Amino acid sequence: MILTVTLNTALDITYRVPSLRPGGSHRVSEVTERPGGKGVNVARVLAALGHEVTVTGFTGGTTGRILRDRLTEVPGLVDALVPISGTTRRTVAVVDERSGGTTQLNEPGPTVSHAEWSAFQEVYEDLLASVTAVALCGSLPPGVPVGAYAGLVRTARAAGVPVLLDTSGAALRRGVAGRPDVIKPNADELAELTGFHEPLRATQDARRRGARAVVASLGAEGLLAVTPEGRWRAAPPARLRGNPTGAGDSAVAGLLSALTDHRPWPDRLTRAVALSTATVVSPTAGEFDHDTYEELLAKVTVTREANAA
Amino acid sequence: MILTVTLNTALDITYRVPSLRPGGSHRVSEVTERPGGKGVNVARVLAALGHEVTVTGFTGGTTGRILRDRLTEVPGLVDALVPISGTTRRTVAVVDERSGGTTQLNEPGPTVSHAEWSAFQEVYEDLLASVTAVALCGSLPPGVPVGAYAGLVRTARAAGVPVLLDTSGAALRRGVAGRPDVIKPNADELAELTGFHEPLRATQDARRRGARAVVASLGAEGLLAVTPEGRWRAAPPARLRGNPTGAGDSAVAGLLSALTDHRPWPDRLTRAVALSTATVVSPTAGEFDHDTYEELLAKVTVTREANAA
Repeated sequence: MILTVTLNTALDITYRVPSLRPGGSHRVSEVTERPGGKGVNVARVLAALGHEVTVTGFTGGTTGRILRDRLTEVPGLVDALVPISGTTRRTVAVVDERSGGTTQLNEPGPTVSHAEWSAFQEVYEDLLASVTAVALCGSLPPGVPVGAYAGLVRTARAAGVPVLLDTSGAALRRGVAGRPDVIKPNADELAELTGFHEPLRATQDARRRGARAVVASLGAEGLLAVTPEGRWRAAPPARLRGNPTGAGDSAVAGLLSALTDHRPWPDRLTRAVALSTATVVSPTAGEFDHDTYEELLAKVTVTREANAA
Repeated sequence: MILTVTLNTALDITYRVPSLRPGGSHRVSEVTERPGGKGVNVARVLAALGHEVTVTGFTGGTTGRILRDRLTEVPGLVDALVPISGTTRRTVAVVDERSGGTTQLNEPGPTVSHAEWSAFQEVYEDLLASVTAVALCGSLPPGVPVGAYAGLVRTARAAGVPVLLDTSGAALRRGVAGRPDVIKPNADELAELTGFHEPLRATQDARRRGARAVVASLGAEGLLAVTPEGRWRAAPPARLRGNPTGAGDSAVAGLLSALTDHRPWPDRLTRAVALSTATVVSPTAGEFDHDTYEELLAKVTVTREANAA
C-alpha cells in the first residue's frame, strides 16, 4: 500500500469556452469535475497502474462531499481523508478552445484548525504502519504551520517508510530540513529553493540542504536525478507536444511505483518519464494514456553520469 | 404572495482576482456564493422589501442542495422548487480588481426530462391559486420546449393572475404570443424581438406581438413604458455609476411590488427605477441599498407622454 498526502485537496473544475475574452460573458460548452490536489492526482495514477493506494489529507463541506463521492469510483483507492469544518476549495481551469491556452483560478482553501491538524497527524502516524512509501504533495492550507512537512517527513523516517516530498516555496524549504528520501522539484522550484539556476548545481545544493535524492523535472528535457547511488539523466525519445498539466504528478507516481516494486533508480526514472510523457500527450488534461505509457517504457533513455562534482 | 419562476436556477459564484490574465494562474482573493437565476434574484429583492414570495422552477444535485440551503436563510421566501435528476448549473463571475470589469462563465445547466417538465406544470398551476402576481424569468434549460413561456403565461391568465415575462431570444418571441400582462426587455432584447432599434417604435411593435404592456429598460436613461393606460418615461435623478448586475431583476421586483400593492403605473415605474438604481450604486453586485432606495423614491421623475402613435 502506498500513501499520498494532500493537505490542500481541491475539486478541480474544467470549463471549455470557444474563446476567453476578459470582460465578456461566456457560455461554457463543456464542464468536467474531478477530485484534485497533487497527492490525489498521484494516487489516481498509481491506482490506474494497479497499485493499492490510500489518500489522506483534509476535506470538508459540500465540495469535500463531492470529492469523496468521486474517489469511491476509483478502483484500488482507499479514502482516509480527515474531515474539517471548512469547505474544500475549488479550482477552475478555463480552456480556450481557439488558443488552446488554460486560465487557472484557484480558491484559497479553508483554514485548518489546530485540533484538525493534530487529528491529521494521528491518522497519518497510524497509516504509516501499513504502507511501503509515502508522498507528501502540494501546498499547505491556511492554518497548517509552514514547517508541517518537516515534521511529517521525520515521522515517516522514524517509521522506516521512504518519503517523497513534492511541494514548493517555503513549504519545500522548510520540508527539506526534515531530510526526505526524495524531492521532485521542477526547474523553477529548484531555483527558488537554492538560488541557483543551473540544474546540476541547484540539484547538488538541494541535497546539501537535506534531501537524500533530488529528481529535478526539466520539462521536455526529462529528469535529472542526483542520488546516493549515482547520478542519471532520463529523457523521452522525442519532444512531444501536449498539455503539461499533471505531468509532474505522474512523474511522482512513476517514482513511487518503481520504488514500491523494489526497482533501482534507472527503472524508477524510466517509469517517471514514461508516465509524465504519456500524460502530456493525452487528450485529457492530467490523465495518461496506457498504451503510450507501455510503448514509452522501452524508449526512454537513461544515462548514467560520472559523479565528478 | 408573489410567485417567481426560474426554470434555469443557478448557484452564482463570484471570484475576485487582482487582475485577470488569459493563460495565467490566479489565486482568488475572495469567494462569494449565492442562489441565482433571474427569478431567484427578483424574489430576494421582493423579500427584502417585505413581500411574501414563493420561488419555483427546477433544482437538483449538489449545487441544487447548496442553493436550497441558502434560500432557507432568506426571511419571507418560500421554496417551492421542483427537484430534478440533473445538477443545477453554476455561474462564475470573475471580478478584476484592477479594471473593475467582470468576466462571466455560465454553465449550460442540466437537461430537464419530459416527466420533470410535466411535474413542474402541475406545481405551477397549484401555486397560482394563492398568488397575486407571477414573474417568469430567465432562460429555458435544455429539455424545456421553446414555447414553454407561452403556455405558462396562458395558465396564469386563465387563473386570473397578472403575469410578467422577463426573458430573451426565442423564449421571449414565443412567450409574447401567450399575451403576458407585462414584458420588461432591455434595448438589445427589444431590438432582437422586433427588429427595430428605435425604442419607442420597438416597444409599440412588441405590444402588437402580444404583450399588454411593455416596460423597456434603457440603461442609464431609465424606463419607457407603453401600456393600455398610457405611456410614460421614468428616470433616475442623475446618471449614477456602478455595477449594472441585477439592475434588471430589481426593476422587475419594483414593478411586481407596486402591482401587488394595487398602485398605478407611475408608482410601479418609480419603484422599478429607484430599486434598479439602488442596485447599480450598491457596492455588492446584485444587492440594493435600502437607504438609497428610500431616498430615490422621492427623486425619480415619471413623465407621461402623449399617445400620439
